[in-house]
Amino acid sequence: MKIRQAGELGLIERISKKIRLDKSVVKGIGDDTAVIKGTGNKYLLFTCDMLIEDVHFKRKQATPFQIGWKAMARNISDIAAMGGVPKYALVSAGLDPRLPVSFVDGIFDGINALAKKFKINIVGGDTSRSNKIVIDISLIGEVEKKGPVLRSGAREGDAIFVTGFLGGSIKGKHLDFTPRLDAARALVKNFKVNSMIDISDGLLLDLWRILEASGRGALLYEDLIPASNKADSFRQAVTAGEDFELLFTMSPKEAERFMRRYSMKLGVPVSLIGEVTSKRCGYRLIGKDWKEDRITGKGYCHF
Amino acid sequence: MKIRQAGELGLIERISKKIRLDKSVVKGIGDDTAVIKGTGNKYLLFTCDMLIEDVHFKRKQATPFQIGWKAMARNISDIAAMGGVPKYALVSAGLDPRLPVSFVDGIFDGINALAKKFKINIVGGDTSRSNKIVIDISLIGEVEKKGPVLRSGAREGDAIFVTGFLGGSIKGKHLDFTPRLDAARALVKNFKVNSMIDISDGLLLDLWRILEASGRGALLYEDLIPASNKADSFRQAVTAGEDFELLFTMSPKEAERFMRRYSMKLGVPVSLIGEVTSKRCGYRLIGKDWKEDRITGKGYCHF
Repeated sequence: MKIRQAGELGLIERISKKIRLDKSVVKGIGDDTAVIKGTGNKYLLFTCDMLIEDVHFKRKQATPFQIGWKAMARNISDIAAMGGVPKYALVSAGLDPRLPVSFVDGIFDGINALAKKFKINIVGGDTSRSNKIVIDISLIGEVEKKGPVLRSGAREGDAIFVTGFLGGSIKGKHLDFTPRLDAARALVKNFKVNSMIDISDGLLLDLWRILEASGRGALLYEDLIPASNKADSFRQAVTAGEDFELLFTMSPKEAERFMRRYSMKLGVPVSLIGEVTSKRCGYRLIGKDWKEDRITGKGYCHF
Repeated sequence: MKIRQAGELGLIERISKKIRLDKSVVKGIGDDTAVIKGTGNKYLLFTCDMLIEDVHFKRKQATPFQIGWKAMARNISDIAAMGGVPKYALVSAGLDPRLPVSFVDGIFDGINALAKKFKINIVGGDTSRSNKIVIDISLIGEVEKKGPVLRSGAREGDAIFVTGFLGGSIKGKHLDFTPRLDAARALVKNFKVNSMIDISDGLLLDLWRILEASGRGALLYEDLIPASNKADSFRQAVTAGEDFELLFTMSPKEAERFMRRYSMKLGVPVSLIGEVTSKRCGYRLIGKDWKEDRITGKGYCHF
């Protein structure tokens, strides 16, 4: 069997089975970031994200600044989706020796702009020759011990929310989005969020990940889902990757409190798009015509 | 100016200048790993290392197991060189979708073999399509607060030691070396080590890094330097990369105690190869013919 046939999820599952973790690991593979007890009064979050030329960006369609920005933003978005704060970054860069140094300056300026904005320390890295540009950033974050919001916490009856507008990111947003860190922190500080993920592979697949991890089903309402005016179609809006919006669930009571008192203060639009159901109710989308579609969770995958 | 002309060190210096760090960072760019205060009773060590096909290995000359092993071993070696213990790893893998899944299994088995040996938790990662195989591992380690052994601590009069035998690593050792973690831990637990580095770019360049960071010079004795019988020449033994031996310095008193009582118990041969001098004495190699060579620190660089 080839990697292409196994797919990204198959590959990760294969690897996960062989791993043994000690008790200091709260969450290993299978969430936005790993969660580690460490020796301190907070949990550590640990995540990495690899950006490869011609897979995640084209050299001619992205400025060096945008390449660096995107590499950093994706990682910060993962920390945000855990309810945490990013703190320390390492930058591995595979670079074509024929590139001008100004190109590297640009990439780094993009990384550094976000580092400054979110007070992240860039503490090291590695450089190597490479024909295709490869930027792999790893990030350590922190979260209060009661804090980390896992994918696995969704409960029956939870309201499902999403920030911003979905789809069409490929037309530009994927290169210059600001990770929803401030909104995520405001959320977890003021409300009990049961589960959260950042939408990197499309709403349908990423919600599927929450449902799988939580052992639940869901009902989504097409009418309520905020498609971007950049999206070509509703289908594209809910399956296209790289939105980097927050998708989260809360108990009905908490959701009511959130909507009444707070949703306007997050600095970002928030939409209620459906509810978590029991697993045997399945994963369904109610269309504008009130017809039901079963969702299988297909989204953007990397192989 | 192109990247090739700036070189790896030039590039890193360029980037370092733009970075601001907060007080929680004990050591940023410029040592084997970053050192972070964190919130716990130990310091965190944080490092990453990128392995790229046709730069660090050839697909036909290395087994998948060896590729994974090497990627992990290089990182562990960096933690060892700080006197620390590796704890948590993330694995980013850029993979050719046409590769058989068994190839990935092999890479991962290599990574996992070292993870098991040294009790490292593999807590996550990222996978992506890539024509060339790219493995970037980032590693969090821990070290006692009095513990981290920096490059900058070498003092005038320090004895300079190196483990193992140098050179010829390209003939195979670079693919299956065992990082000197146990030796490094035994060292720092029992002795005051003033400075340490792992030799990744050749003895001369890596000692130069210690001397630069410490503001010192050194005298090396060709007669004392343990060249591997795999090395083609003495010159090759002291300039070729990827030895991953430990290079460290201790005060004369501590060195004497070390040699008398302990050097045989590290489980690895250790050689005294010279001494640290003042900076104005320069960086010199005394040949077998007692002629002196000035050393400029040229070794293996990645661009």
